[in-house]
This record gives sequence, structure tokens and C-alpha cells, in this order.
Amino acid sequence: MHDLIIIGGGPAGYHAAELAAKEGLKTILFEERNLGGVCLNEGCIPSKALLYSAKLFDYANGGGARYGITCEAPKLDYAMAVRRKDKVVKKLVMGIEATLKGGGVTVIKARAEIEGRVEGGFAVNAGGKSYQTAKLLLCTGSEPMLPPIDGLQDALASGFAMTNREILALTEPPKRLVIVGGGVIGLEMASLMTSALCQVTVIEMLDKIAGPTDTEISTLLQKEYEKRGVRFLLNAKLTGIGQDAVTYEQDGKATNLLCDKVLLSIGRRATTAGFGLERIGVEIQNGAVPTDAQQKTNVPGVFAAGDINGTYMLAHTAYREAEVAINVICGRKDTMEYNAIPSVIYTNPEVAGVGETLESARAKGFEAHEVKLPMMYSGRYMAENEGGTGICKLVWAGKRLIGVHMLGNPASEIIATAAALISREISLEQAKKIVFPHPSVAEILREGLFHS
Amino acid sequence: MHDLIIIGGGPAGYHAAELAAKEGLKTILFEERNLGGVCLNEGCIPSKALLYSAKLFDYANGGGARYGITCEAPKLDYAMAVRRKDKVVKKLVMGIEATLKGGGVTVIKARAEIEGRVEGGFAVNAGGKSYQTAKLLLCTGSEPMLPPIDGLQDALASGFAMTNREILALTEPPKRLVIVGGGVIGLEMASLMTSALCQVTVIEMLDKIAGPTDTEISTLLQKEYEKRGVRFLLNAKLTGIGQDAVTYEQDGKATNLLCDKVLLSIGRRATTAGFGLERIGVEIQNGAVPTDAQQKTNVPGVFAAGDINGTYMLAHTAYREAEVAINVICGRKDTMEYNAIPSVIYTNPEVAGVGETLESARAKGFEAHEVKLPMMYSGRYMAENEGGTGICKLVWAGKRLIGVHMLGNPASEIIATAAALISREISLEQAKKIVFPHPSVAEILREGLFHS
Repeated sequence: MHDLIIIGGGPAGYHAAELAAKEGLKTILFEERNLGGVCLNEGCIPSKALLYSAKLFDYANGGGARYGITCEAPKLDYAMAVRRKDKVVKKLVMGIEATLKGGGVTVIKARAEIEGRVEGGFAVNAGGKSYQTAKLLLCTGSEPMLPPIDGLQDALASGFAMTNREILALTEPPKRLVIVGGGVIGLEMASLMTSALCQVTVIEMLDKIAGPTDTEISTLLQKEYEKRGVRFLLNAKLTGIGQDAVTYEQDGKATNLLCDKVLLSIGRRATTAGFGLERIGVEIQNGAVPTDAQQKTNVPGVFAAGDINGTYMLAHTAYREAEVAINVICGRKDTMEYNAIPSVIYTNPEVAGVGETLESARAKGFEAHEVKLPMMYSGRYMAENEGGTGICKLVWAGKRLIGVHMLGNPASEIIATAAALISREISLEQAKKIVFPHPSVAEILREGLFHS
Repeated sequence: MHDLIIIGGGPAGYHAAELAAKEGLKTILFEERNLGGVCLNEGCIPSKALLYSAKLFDYANGGGARYGITCEAPKLDYAMAVRRKDKVVKKLVMGIEATLKGGGVTVIKARAEIEGRVEGGFAVNAGGKSYQTAKLLLCTGSEPMLPPIDGLQDALASGFAMTNREILALTEPPKRLVIVGGGVIGLEMASLMTSALCQVTVIEMLDKIAGPTDTEISTLLQKEYEKRGVRFLLNAKLTGIGQDAVTYEQDGKATNLLCDKVLLSIGRRATTAGFGLERIGVEIQNGAVPTDAQQKTNVPGVFAAGDINGTYMLAHTAYREAEVAINVICGRKDTMEYNAIPSVIYTNPEVAGVGETLESARAKGFEAHEVKLPMMYSGRYMAENEGGTGICKLVWAGKRLIGVHMLGNPASEIIATAAALISREISLEQAKKIVFPHPSVAEILREGLFHS
């Protein structure tokens, strides 16, 4: 009998395994693919490695001129950038393997399925062998949603249609790419591919890109990419997919669009099937496993963390949920809070936010107001962003900071400070005493506080 | 009779003026040069604009190859980069002018001198006119220290020797540059000029570069720049300066070094002379005006903020000191704290730190220990820093975080989060609950917390 079995070795699973082992729990982690999950193998990390190559290429390919840098015959060796990306991923996967091994976690590379209940716990089968455990932590993650469209299976089989997995494995950029879904993944891939000189069209069902992102920010981002040649079709719906074209409907009109590849990035859904959840009665609601603030499912002894609960499908949410689960399993008090989860779109410029937007706050009934500043209030932003149109917004409910949203580099790194202020409920008076380095783009937060 | 006269329009002075006007104080700000002080006109901001051009040039000039980016005939148009820098500075100066004007501050572009006491306050003369004020805030800043060396005045007059002011105004890089003093300014200029293909030698009196920076970090930084061809002469002392060479002594041996330009960056000293401080008895100690934790000088009604007090000669310290001064002048309680002042060296990679190093902590009697991580623990650092050797150190006094020190981009932006943790005394347990975006280099702090 083990203390803990974890199914799924993505961010939630591997982090939980490491923490559990530190606590002295006899732990098995099951993962059928590489450790690191979607995030490390076919998501956050590989996309960032490629986006960095793309960003550097943008500067060589004319973007440096405004800073006094010119060159001839700029070239992006895409295949080489992909090889480097693969190397980065491999090193990080090996790092996790080493950490877990060093920490005393048993990692079993196999698909695991819950067999049923046993006395004092549960039985899990993997590779024909049965394992018993007192506690179970489900970290099976998520998978791309696919639209119910004729011809999709054929298009996926032929490689014409891709998900995040396939697009990150391409060794050359397509000439013409259609991206279905203008959310985080769609926009990051639009950014990557347009830098790689691919002609990109984004088909988005809603009237804006970037999902729940502050609308002013998503509009600015859209304009920025339109300037670079990306075409955005809003209020548009994919209706068909062939082998060299897609069909979409917009304003009641169907249009055929020729292209070389199609990326499907309409969203992700929790992975709940095929793990035997039904055998122990784990509840599934709206396709996900609901958890409470202690990461408990409806079945005593069974916890879940990460994308499987369908709440915030982000690696860093998964990490924190894993921590809460392990703390609770070890008998410590801990509570998952979702009020200060950052989210980032790694376009160039980056978009980052944490907490409520003015819109979401008002929809929740907060008497909210926002303080908006151009990023140009930061001297460093000005020094490093010729012609930049970034903005920063602080959202307040009375005297309480409940949201910060930004467009402008390096928002992804600065937003951590905002997350700290919001999650630790630091008052305006206290926050004003924090000394920010000058010059830094992070100072925009300080400016925002002084304008609040 | 005015409520407040501020002498000096650098970061301390202009920020104080803006805050004072918001409080309804009848305020005059005297500045004989451009608003913004050394920081904005000949320090932090212009150097960052140029360093950004240099960084982009590094990538075009071979640095991008490891990311798959190549090009031919890369060129840094240094004069154009300087023009852009000037434009950035001008815009920011105009921004301050507009803010102060809009806020109702009277800005007088003249050298001001204290005349003496009057009933209920002080009299200040500028441009032959006398102004009376109840309170005085001294923000006269600092100036470069110059070594007592024969020939220096001639070398400065001819342009062979330069301070931070002149080097930032050069419209072409010298071929061979000697930098005397391997502190922040010296290292940033070494970075800029070596990127601009200038041959750089740094003469440093101490046995390490980068002043009080953690020694392991400064050693790594030195190695990085040695790889790029910068020559560091440690334990070396400038002994002479001619019109095309300097002489230095190392290990008791004098050596002559031919060069085209010499930068003197051995340090800065408070500017205290020529303002009539002696007429009202303002105390000067070790060349600076000492202030208490409320920014008061020894003379009731006279406050000082910024470099003039010689404490931490940094713009962001000046901002905070200005805030404390204005709060105290307005009768509110506030206290200047120096335990969480970030400092940054904008080399590439950047160095940033806040609070104590292990060495400084132990010297102060703390029972301190440090947690050290390679920056490669951050997946994003790995994705964007091929071959990077960055490290991050967390310094603890028992369970209290008292310092964070980093080598690696973008340390300058990440260190704000560390400053928030230290200055707001957020406990380890609380800090672990902060969700950092993934992937971000900022996550190295989270890793550090989980390794603590």
C-alpha cells in the first residue's frame, strides 16, 4: 500500500510528486508520455523557445532599424530554432526526471487506470500490474477541443490540420496558415508564424481576440498584429475543412480560404476519460472533475489538481493546486485561491494580467474603477520600446487592488509583482513604500499606485 | 512666503515638487539645468537607451546564431542610436515639465542659493531675486568624484578624459577606451562600448568589480565580459593621465596604457557647495548632508533627499526619500527604510540585488545563510538564454528573507518582486502562496522559496 498515487506527470503531477516525497510520502507517479505534460513538451516552454528566436529575427529583419541596427540578408533558420527548442525541452524533462528520482519518487512510464476501491484506499492498474494506495491525486490534464466539423479527422490525419502539438513540431513554417481560435495559443502561434514570414489568418468566433483579456488591451494587440500583416476574422465560424482550404461563415456568408496548414486552437477540455474515474464514482461536471478549495473531489481520499478540474487551465495554477493538495493530504491547512492568478500572452508585445478586469469586476458586482497609464510613463519602457503603445491598468474595488492588466514588454515578468500585491492584500499605503528599481518597466506599477 | 522651496530638479526634487503641489503646498522648484537631474539627462535613462541598441546589435552581430538567426554586414549606427537616446531624454524631460506645470509647481530655471533665515523660514536667491519659504528641501544631487591626478584637468578639457556626462554624448565610440573604476557606471559603459566594438580596459582599485555586489555574481559577470574581450585590471590604481595614455600601478609596477579616451567612474560625491548651506548652518559630514529617517537635516525646517545625503546614490532611493520628506512636511508619519532598496547593473546579463548579501549580512552580525539556484531552474530562462550562467541567491536571517541577488535577464524587472517580499516582510509561508506566471524568469524566486 502506497501513501499516494499520482496519475499524470504534468506541472500538477510532477510538482505534487516532488512535494509528497519531501514529506516522506511513499509516492508513485504514473505518466505514459514524457514528464512535464503538455506545458513542457508541447506548450508553454517550446513555444517560448521558438518565440524568442522569432523575436530576435524581427529585430534583424528590420525591427532593429529604429534603434540604429541594420544588417543584410537576415535569415531565420527555422529548423535550427526547432532543434534548439527540442534540446531545451529535453534538458528540462531530464531535470524533472532527476529531481523526482533524487527525491525518491517512483516514476512509472505507463498509462494508469483506476481499478476500484480496496480496503483503506484504491487500486490502480498500469502495464498489467496492480498498485494500491491510500490517497489518489488526479492530474490527467487537458487536451485540445476540436470543432465538430466534417473532414476534420482526415485533415488531422494528413497533417493539414494541427493542434498545438503538431504546429510546434513543424520544421518549416507554412506559407499560409489559418488559425482557428484567437485565444492565447492562437495568438502566440500567429506571432511566431508571422515573424517567420508566414501569411496568417485568424478565425475567431467572438467579436474580440484574446478571450477574457481586457478589451482595450486585446484591441491594441490586434491592431499591432494587423500592422504586421495578420488578418483577423472576428464573429467568424469555421464550417468546413478540406485538404487545402477551410470554409468559414461570417455575417451569414460562407467563404472558402486556401491555405497550407490549419491550427485548431479553439480551447482545451479536461482529460477525464479512460482513467476509470467511473469505477470509484468520481463526479464529472461539464466535462471536468470539480474540486473544492482543498482540491478534494467528491470521493474522500481522491484529490485532483491542474487542468483536469477545468478551472484555470494554466501550469502555474496547477503548481499551486498541487501544493494545496499535498498540504491537505499531509494534514496542514491550505486553501486554493483564484483571485490572483496571472495570465500571459507571449506575443511581442506581451500581454499580462492578474485578477479582475474592470469588466469582470463589474459583472461580479464590485463597485470597481480603474486607473490607466500609458507604459510610456516608464522611462525604461520608453528607452526600449520605440513607438510602443503599451498601457497598464490597475483595477480597484474601493481601496482594494483587485486587478492589474498590461500590454508591453516584459509584462510577463512584471506581473509577478502585481500578483504579490493582490494575493497578499498589500494596502495602497504599504505598496507605495515598496522601492522599485529605476529605471525599470516594473515602475509602471509604482506610477499606477501613485495615480490611484 | 512660499510653503516649500526645493533646490534641485532631479528625481528627488521633481518627485517631491509634484507630491507637494498635490498636497496644496505653494511650491517653487529651482533647477539650473534640465529637469530630471543626472539620472534622466546623463545617467540611467540615456545609458539604457544606448545599451538597448547595443544589445540588439549583439544579436545581429553573431549573438543570434545560437537561436537560428544570422545576417550579413551587421551595422550599429552609433550616431543614430545617440540621436534616438537624445530624443527619448527630451521627451521624458518634457513630460516632467508638463507634469509639474499641470500640477501647479512654479519651476524656475536658475541656480538657487540660500541667503539666510527670515522670520518663519528662509530666503533663497536666484537670478538676483529673493524668495521666502517656510520649509526648504535640498535635492542638489551628486557629481562625479575625480581622482587627484596630475594632468587630469587638461585631459578633461581636451576631451580625452570623460565623466558619465561626456561619454553619453559621444557620437562615435572610441577605438580604445580605458575605464577607471569598475562600479555600476564603469561596467555599464564597458558593456556598451565593447558591444560597439571598442577595445575596453577596466582599471579597478579593489580586488573585485561591481562594488558591494555579491562576489560570486561579480566574478561571473567579470568572466562573461572577459569572454567578450574586456580586460580587467584589478588591484590597480590610476597614477597618471596624459593626452593619449594613462599610467596605472599594479603589484608595485607602473604601466603606460595607450588609449583614445578615458572614462572616470570611480564614484560620486554629494553636491553640497555653492548653495549657501553654511549660511543657515546645515551640517555637512563626510562631504554629505546627513538626514534622519524623516529626511530632516540638523536645521529645523530644512529637509534633504536624494544623493545629497550620500546614503544610497540611486534615483529610486531619491524618489522614496522625497515621499518621506513630503509626508513629514505635511504632518503625516513616514519613515525611510533602507533595507529593501534594489540595485541594478544593466549589463547583459543584468545584475540585480536587494537587501543584504550573505557577506554584508554576516558583517552586520546576522546569523545568515543563503539558498543558491542556477537561473536554469527557470524554464523560460533556459528558453531565452542559451548557454546562460546566471544564478539567484536568497539570503535568510533565520526565517526572514533579507536579501535577493541575481545574475541573468531580466533581473532588473524581477527584483521588484523580491523588494516587495522583503520590504513588506512577507513570510515564507505567505510568499509561497503567490502564484508566479509560468513560464517566467521571475519563477526563480518561487523556486528559491521552495528550496528555502
